Amino acid sequence: MRSIDDANRAAVERMMAARPMLTGVGRARDVVPGMRDNLLLHAGPPIAWERMSGPLRGAVIGALLYEKLASDEHEAVALVERGEIDFAPCHHHATVGPMAGVTSASMQVYVVEDTAHGHRTFSNLNEGYGKVLRYGAYAPEVIQKLRWMNDVMGPVLGDAIAMIPGGGGVDLRTLLAEALHMGDEGHNRNKAGSLLFLQRLAPFIIRATASAETAAEILKFMGDTPLTVLNPVMAACKVMADAAHGIEGSTIVSTMVRNGTDFGIQVSGLGDRWFTAPAAVPDGLYFPGFSAADANPDIGDSTITETVGVGGFAMAAAPAIVTFIGGTPQDALNATLEMYEITTGEHAHFTIPTLGFRGTPTGIDLRKVVELGITPRINTGIAHRQAGVGQIGAGLVRAPMEIFEEALVAFAETHRI
Amino acid sequence: MRSIDDANRAAVERMMAARPMLTGVGRARDVVPGMRDNLLLHAGPPIAWERMSGPLRGAVIGALLYEKLASDEHEAVALVERGEIDFAPCHHHATVGPMAGVTSASMQVYVVEDTAHGHRTFSNLNEGYGKVLRYGAYAPEVIQKLRWMNDVMGPVLGDAIAMIPGGGGVDLRTLLAEALHMGDEGHNRNKAGSLLFLQRLAPFIIRATASAETAAEILKFMGDTPLTVLNPVMAACKVMADAAHGIEGSTIVSTMVRNGTDFGIQVSGLGDRWFTAPAAVPDGLYFPGFSAADANPDIGDSTITETVGVGGFAMAAAPAIVTFIGGTPQDALNATLEMYEITTGEHAHFTIPTLGFRGTPTGIDLRKVVELGITPRINTGIAHRQAGVGQIGAGLVRAPMEIFEEALVAFAETHRI
Repeated sequence: MRSIDDANRAAVERMMAARPMLTGVGRARDVVPGMRDNLLLHAGPPIAWERMSGPLRGAVIGALLYEKLASDEHEAVALVERGEIDFAPCHHHATVGPMAGVTSASMQVYVVEDTAHGHRTFSNLNEGYGKVLRYGAYAPEVIQKLRWMNDVMGPVLGDAIAMIPGGGGVDLRTLLAEALHMGDEGHNRNKAGSLLFLQRLAPFIIRATASAETAAEILKFMGDTPLTVLNPVMAACKVMADAAHGIEGSTIVSTMVRNGTDFGIQVSGLGDRWFTAPAAVPDGLYFPGFSAADANPDIGDSTITETVGVGGFAMAAAPAIVTFIGGTPQDALNATLEMYEITTGEHAHFTIPTLGFRGTPTGIDLRKVVELGITPRINTGIAHRQAGVGQIGAGLVRAPMEIFEEALVAFAETHRI
Repeated sequence: MRSIDDANRAAVERMMAARPMLTGVGRARDVVPGMRDNLLLHAGPPIAWERMSGPLRGAVIGALLYEKLASDEHEAVALVERGEIDFAPCHHHATVGPMAGVTSASMQVYVVEDTAHGHRTFSNLNEGYGKVLRYGAYAPEVIQKLRWMNDVMGPVLGDAIAMIPGGGGVDLRTLLAEALHMGDEGHNRNKAGSLLFLQRLAPFIIRATASAETAAEILKFMGDTPLTVLNPVMAACKVMADAAHGIEGSTIVSTMVRNGTDFGIQVSGLGDRWFTAPAAVPDGLYFPGFSAADANPDIGDSTITETVGVGGFAMAAAPAIVTFIGGTPQDALNATLEMYEITTGEHAHFTIPTLGFRGTPTGIDLRKVVELGITPRINTGIAHRQAGVGQIGAGLVRAPMEIFEEALVAFAETHRI
């Protein structure tokens, strides 16, 4: 029987060998496995309506308005309270969504295929900054923007991706590797990656629509949003993490997520079991007029980036991010250096120029987290705790230690170590 | 009478206060002061045909073919040898061009205006990598590409710039500052800046042409070329350098240029006098099949970037550049740190995240160069020494010490110090 170290190396090798290609865009109901009209996917581990935080509830309301299952907030809440809407984590349907992550049947999703292992993952379209569903906003302009994104932009993006010569779509691992050399860390800073994405797609977006004005509006929308590529990057990270899941005897963390109430992890060698604890409030910089008192606990599936060695783990690549989340460039460097302590490998494809092109710290080992008392560092946006307000800042947060301890106990019991 | 230090501070303040806005694109004969049909502008200090290096001669031949003043290489050379073509440095006409820098009357040029001081500068359109005029290539496909760029792309870019809301064009100082936070140094690495430029212009490029296919081709051409923004950035640097020129009693270097034979400088307090010496061959990485034996001495006006505190002076911002020019990220850091020794100020707008957002070393002081024996460091492309071949590598080079010594002697004589 092979050792845990061997199993972990095998898991991390599979994670790094995954080849995420963005191959298309489709309606969730048509492409996401198990999707149906009365099902809403959400970020994080499983949670019932009663325990959902403000921003997640807001996004649920907004999605029901978007789907025309309800005509106002009260109808939406009544519908949920009558039990007519089912909820499931995005992760249970091979999907990831930033912040609230609410994904409904009519929404367009990016389709990412791991051509090395033959697995597919999905993520919705990014709404940009301001009042957005993912932060729990559901005002009419939020819903109107979603309609334009999903009815106009999504199909054009799908057609544009299909026109890319060679038919393989957009190589997201290459794109992310390039972005890390341009000051991104792939989670909270996706400025370079979003421009690279725009550059790859722009000529095909023009050819994919008969309307020049529509093409111009799509390029403006994508260009104005330095988070445009976050969602396909998250789906790419999910497909990489999935490649490392299910390795017998491995203590590698294969999922880290938050739903605004709980933080949850899954472990490669422990199947589909969730280990959860209350999510913390991030420590960061607030937009004018807001403070930590307004902040919701940590929320979103975007921690899938840290799970595969980027985001907070690659902060040394993105020193300029401190203007957005606080701290100094030295703190950013230290964050990455610390994460080498709790990881199994250095990424073969994601490298950090200022560290002499050292690979990013990759593959969180449960044992090291518990032994060293060092929890994963995460870069994140901060949502207002009330539904409908939106983003109020950005900062840093750590995963709660108890879930790693609990998972290690479970691992020990299962594996009799 | 104020001190040299005061004069230098005044010069650097003006350099940093300059506000370069890209306001348009026009034919050189219509917008460049003193441009005429039998005049070719070239990079570097003044030089006669007899002393021109291979790549510069190649670009001269190519420009005469492009202008249809000659129908083949032999006719072009004969025309020049009969004395029917005049030559002048780009810099004598408020213009800058990368590498050979050859600019003829029918070529389109970017127009950059310093809205702080009311001065205008110009630069031609970038041809991308491969066989290009600026490296001395003049094969039919080079001329054909120039025709498309100048007849199709240039006018669309001009119309697109004019459509930018507010009417002020593209703020190039802001763009360059942003690019320095994204791993560019603004001379040899303009990858982020070129994507930011594409992002700013893309929606307007679509609206500026009735042909979707033309818009798609332009976006593809601009997106495929990580040097797209180099030329407008060079014009921006020229307008910043010009703002620092002509300050009585200042020892700040206001121009650094090379024509492939000589390296030349001008000094703020020494009027239009050129100080020149033989240009060195860069030390760098060569493309497969080429070596230092094939290399032409240093060439191009792009050292205007180092003159205003970016390029080689900002290498610490661009650690990934070492994959292109050789060396290690530590060398890149050291290059910037060394340049603080010979400069007067730290840039108020161009900052380096990894140095705690310290301003780039700005305003080369002749006195410090001579006193410390440290010459300016320059990032550059390497041209083949024969006309018509093109780029064969990229690397680092230093300005020759004797021109600084000579200039300091001239300054001492003029100012009786």
